[in-house]
Amino acid sequence: MDKYRVIEVKQSIFADNDQDAERLRQQMKKEKTCLINLMSSPGSGKTTTLTGLINRLKDQLKIGVMEADIDSDVDAGTISKTGVKVIQLHTGGMCHLDADMTRQGVMELETEDLDLVILENVGNLVCPAEFDTGAAMNIMILSVPEGHDKPLKYPLIFQVCDAMIINKIDVLPYFDFDMEKVEEFAHRRNPNLKLFPISAKTGEGMDALASWIKENADAWNGNLT
Amino acid sequence: MDKYRVIEVKQSIFADNDQDAERLRQQMKKEKTCLINLMSSPGSGKTTTLTGLINRLKDQLKIGVMEADIDSDVDAGTISKTGVKVIQLHTGGMCHLDADMTRQGVMELETEDLDLVILENVGNLVCPAEFDTGAAMNIMILSVPEGHDKPLKYPLIFQVCDAMIINKIDVLPYFDFDMEKVEEFAHRRNPNLKLFPISAKTGEGMDALASWIKENADAWNGNLT
Repeated sequence: MDKYRVIEVKQSIFADNDQDAERLRQQMKKEKTCLINLMSSPGSGKTTTLTGLINRLKDQLKIGVMEADIDSDVDAGTISKTGVKVIQLHTGGMCHLDADMTRQGVMELETEDLDLVILENVGNLVCPAEFDTGAAMNIMILSVPEGHDKPLKYPLIFQVCDAMIINKIDVLPYFDFDMEKVEEFAHRRNPNLKLFPISAKTGEGMDALASWIKENADAWNGNLT
Repeated sequence: MDKYRVIEVKQSIFADNDQDAERLRQQMKKEKTCLINLMSSPGSGKTTTLTGLINRLKDQLKIGVMEADIDSDVDAGTISKTGVKVIQLHTGGMCHLDADMTRQGVMELETEDLDLVILENVGNLVCPAEFDTGAAMNIMILSVPEGHDKPLKYPLIFQVCDAMIINKIDVLPYFDFDMEKVEEFAHRRNPNLKLFPISAKTGEGMDALASWIKENADAWNGNLT
C-alpha cells in the first residue's frame, strides 16, 4: 500500500503569480514553516540528495516533502521510505509549479505542524526558474556530468537561487568538469550564490549542506540559536 | 572573428503551431532538405554528439546547424569549428522553439542548398517535446548519468521522437544505469523508438548513428540508394 497521496494540481490562468507567491510566503512565515523549492535538470540527483538530507535532519526538524512530476509516482515512493510526510503532485503536463499550484500542495500536505517543507520541482533548468513558488529559499542542483558551462547557457536559475548544490563529485575523475570555472560562471550570474559540492551517493559534503539548511530553516522559523 | 551570426527569434502568439509546422515540413521536403530536431536535457552531450556526427557526414551531405539557446553563443562557437554553416538562435528566455521560430532560423540559415539541417533545441526534456518544429525527424539524447527511469517521468519526449541516443556509455561502470530497463521503459512509451547507445567522447557507436541519419536524410530528400 502506498504511503503517499497523489494530487493533480491545476494552473490558475488568471493568477498574479508574484502576489500569490508573496501571500503563500507570508502564510508559511506565520506558521513557522520553512518552504524550500528544489530545482534541477532531470537526473541531477534531486531525490537522492533529498533522501540524504532528510535522514540527516529528520530527528531535528519535522519535515514534509512535495514531489512534483508530470507523471509517475517514482519519487514519492522513494521519499516515503524515509518516514517523513510526502505527497506527489502531478502537474498535468506542466513544466513547472507556480505559486498557486504550490499552495494547493501545501494545503493537501497540511504543513502547520512542520518545520521544513521541501518542494521537489519538475526536472527542468529553464521554466521553474521563471515562477516564484512562494518558497523561503530556492536551491538548485547542478551535477558534474552536466558540465561547468551551464551558468552561461541557463542564466536565470542561477540568478534566482540562494544555493547551488554541485552533485556527483564522486565521478569528477571521469568528466571534464572544472570546479573553478563553474564557480566563476555561477558567481558571474549571482555573486551571493552559496556553493555546496557534494556526492549524494557517497555522502561527501552532505553534513555541511544539512547544517546550512537547518540554520536557515531555524532563522526563517524564528528559532534563533 | 566569429564565424556565425546570432538571431533573436520571436514567438508568434497567434500562430497555429501545428499548421506552421506542417507548412515548414512541406517546404523543406520540396527543397530536399532534411531537418532534424535534436532535443535533450542540459548537459547530455548534444553539442559533442553533433560535432561527431558532422565530422562523419560532412563529406557526404551538405550540412547546416541551428543552435538554439536562451543566452550565450557557446555552442555555435564549438560547431563553427567543424566548418559547416551554423547560426545561433536566441529564444529570449523561451524554453523551446516552435515552428515559426524554427522557420525564422531556416530563413536566416538559407537552407536551399543544404541536404541536412540540424536544430539543436534548448536543453529541456519537457517543453520542446510539446511543440512540433516542422522537422522531418525528432531525435533525443538521454545520457547515462541522468538515469534509466526518465521515460517514466518525462513521457512525452519519448513518444514524439523517432530515435533515442543513449550517450556517455563510457561512464556506465560508474553509474547505476540499467540498459535493459531504459529500453523497456522507453519502448513502453514508444514501441517504434530506435535506440543508439553511444559515447560521443570515445566515438563508440557513432558510425552506426551517422549511417542511420544518412539513410533517413537520403530517403527524405528522395535520393534513394
